Amino acid sequence: MSLDVGQPLPTELPAVEEAARMPSGFLAAAAAVGIKTSGRPDLGLLTTVGRLASAAATFTTNSMRAAPVRLSENHLLAGEPGGAGRWGRAAAVLSTSGCANAATGRAGEEDQAALAGMLADRLHIEPQQTLAISTGLIGTRLPVERLAAALPGLVGNLSNGDQALAALAEQMCTTDSRPKWATTSLELLDAYGRPKTVTVSGIAKGVGMIHPRMATMLALILTDARVDADVLHGMLNAAVARTWNQLTVDGDTSTNDTVFLLASGASGATSPTVASPEASQLGRAVIAVARSLARQQAADGEGATTLITCQVSGAEDDRRARAVARSVVASSLVKACVHGRDPNWGRIVAAAGNATVDGRPVGLDEARVAVAMAGVTVFEGEPVPFDKAALSRLMTAPELLIRVDVGGGSGTGEAFGCDLTEQYVIENSAYST
Amino acid sequence: MSLDVGQPLPTELPAVEEAARMPSGFLAAAAAVGIKTSGRPDLGLLTTVGRLASAAATFTTNSMRAAPVRLSENHLLAGEPGGAGRWGRAAAVLSTSGCANAATGRAGEEDQAALAGMLADRLHIEPQQTLAISTGLIGTRLPVERLAAALPGLVGNLSNGDQALAALAEQMCTTDSRPKWATTSLELLDAYGRPKTVTVSGIAKGVGMIHPRMATMLALILTDARVDADVLHGMLNAAVARTWNQLTVDGDTSTNDTVFLLASGASGATSPTVASPEASQLGRAVIAVARSLARQQAADGEGATTLITCQVSGAEDDRRARAVARSVVASSLVKACVHGRDPNWGRIVAAAGNATVDGRPVGLDEARVAVAMAGVTVFEGEPVPFDKAALSRLMTAPELLIRVDVGGGSGTGEAFGCDLTEQYVIENSAYST
Repeated sequence: MSLDVGQPLPTELPAVEEAARMPSGFLAAAAAVGIKTSGRPDLGLLTTVGRLASAAATFTTNSMRAAPVRLSENHLLAGEPGGAGRWGRAAAVLSTSGCANAATGRAGEEDQAALAGMLADRLHIEPQQTLAISTGLIGTRLPVERLAAALPGLVGNLSNGDQALAALAEQMCTTDSRPKWATTSLELLDAYGRPKTVTVSGIAKGVGMIHPRMATMLALILTDARVDADVLHGMLNAAVARTWNQLTVDGDTSTNDTVFLLASGASGATSPTVASPEASQLGRAVIAVARSLARQQAADGEGATTLITCQVSGAEDDRRARAVARSVVASSLVKACVHGRDPNWGRIVAAAGNATVDGRPVGLDEARVAVAMAGVTVFEGEPVPFDKAALSRLMTAPELLIRVDVGGGSGTGEAFGCDLTEQYVIENSAYST
Repeated sequence: MSLDVGQPLPTELPAVEEAARMPSGFLAAAAAVGIKTSGRPDLGLLTTVGRLASAAATFTTNSMRAAPVRLSENHLLAGEPGGAGRWGRAAAVLSTSGCANAATGRAGEEDQAALAGMLADRLHIEPQQTLAISTGLIGTRLPVERLAAALPGLVGNLSNGDQALAALAEQMCTTDSRPKWATTSLELLDAYGRPKTVTVSGIAKGVGMIHPRMATMLALILTDARVDADVLHGMLNAAVARTWNQLTVDGDTSTNDTVFLLASGASGATSPTVASPEASQLGRAVIAVARSLARQQAADGEGATTLITCQVSGAEDDRRARAVARSVVASSLVKACVHGRDPNWGRIVAAAGNATVDGRPVGLDEARVAVAMAGVTVFEGEPVPFDKAALSRLMTAPELLIRVDVGGGSGTGEAFGCDLTEQYVIENSAYST
């Protein structure tokens, strides 16, 4: 057994910059209307310029889906019945934070619809061309009148500058200590064969009730590439499977998880066809941006001091590798011992052994399992002697890489989490009060 | 929608006393041999008197199963090939604590086999008639020589008194603040139609890495009833599904989870046949003892101050009800807000919405969901106004009952957990060091 204790995954993704850069074809603005008691911005708007964007979406699988999730799905479905509520076209995204508008019954649904109607009136579009995202306390109502009063000013402030995208990212935050943004660019050709720069940018918020499942939490990825909505949806699904579905802060899947991937087409580059090299290149850019955002969310997990990345190789397939990686970063005991800089690798082995796919154990052979922490091999079918004090010191870094190899398969995967701290408990013991 | 906010479940179980009472036909002893650095008892032995007991077992589904788990399964299988390693006959159970003997490779397996051989020699039985349980740090070896040296003294101290069973329960403990025990009795008839008192007693340990799944953690249930091993296995499975598989402390399934249910037959009562009223009565006694132990384990969860019981009604079937209940008590956010006495019921609704069965969402209809905390209804398809300060005061009790009704079905279920506290993080940040 030979375990590469470095960081071999992923090698094929383009570099990403942690910055908010607005792709062409989009406008954004944010304002403070008093949903948040802190007085920070809590209302945001993203629109397209002059045309509809292709849109792809993934939503939470929580049964108690929030009103904005149901509204967005219905609007996508109304515009493109073949898209099953997962892709279509959109002109605007309304973002509210501080109130999730979840578990608010029919009244909450009517609030969300009223806002969509007022926004559509103001932008001279159809309500079905608007999407919505919301995050915050569950079980409270949106202050619809105050939001309505703020809409004209918000629309008046729309801007295509990078600062506008940054403001939108800041508006989405709740317990986040900092906004999350990521950007990359690539070259695609236009209809005349001329190279055009395409930008892919994402913003996201965390950082509690984070355990996306078949879905993900609030994030927007924007590109000025021209992409058909169904192709866009395929790119988004591939990215989510590798990034947000591999992120966990506290094991709780939110009622409001939403990712939108919007393509304005404003770059002038032509639309890549399915399975073309161009689609593959753009898809990798989407994954790279999503991965950066997911890692920023993990690093900023409520109370967290350490980003934990678990990379798994040797599994039967990628799905199983991802399941093992996620099981490790989701373990309360692993998270607590990372916090204590305690190289208690037995918990990693136990957590790996708990991984399931479709409710069934992945099934590891202990004799073929190897584990390394921060580049130090600690287990290879049996305990490997190591310098405990030295490894404990390595664990004081802001990121801990846990490498797990589970046998001779070619499946690889990674997952992102954070340590469990007293501060997490303190923050979450009194949130609504 | 009308929600019974009391504690309607379960009504059919017999009363249980939290005490260690040794059923006839068993002997036990415990000793301190220095596995635990605290010097507390860490070696225990249970034997039957003069005959083999019927034995039923459930084990962890963690892929990285500990050496004692694999040994016990193999021994049951060797004695009764038709029992698939889940039932058979046994004369002794060897218990070690402070070292899990998990992830120790072939050497750990040989250690466990050597101990079984020495124990069998000393008791003049076959090694295959011994079972083993172990709990403690993962990845460390058992001190076989010291254990071997202690065996003769341990066997010499075997006693059938209640104190011996209590000592065994204490020996099993690791981070437990107190031992867990439960007992009940019933009357069954002997071959001549005379009433005989049958005792059902259980002991168990917690209190971290507790999230039993298709299996459970360390517990022994003893009865002096006479029961065939396969019937006993059916009783144990029914009890585990309703009790230990509904218990969670930290979401981590251990490598060592084991429950043995042993029947000595020493009461003189005749063996109940499958599906007889007597088997049903004995089965309920087993469930009652298991439920009491699981609740004691939840209440004593690492760092816990509050026992959380979630009872669910109105589900399509009992399995779905149990899944919803377990999802609620497993939620880090619910656990944290209970700790803060914060009636943030939105987290309960969100956690209920995350329940899955066989990897698929249970699928709740928000409009039909009702939630009560400590007897106060807080949600009935939409938020219900309530006195937040008064409910917060009710939440200071040592147990919080969360009642959830999810619609018109007849499925019911409950689950047991505890609050998440700073102390949990502190205890688990430095365990191995």
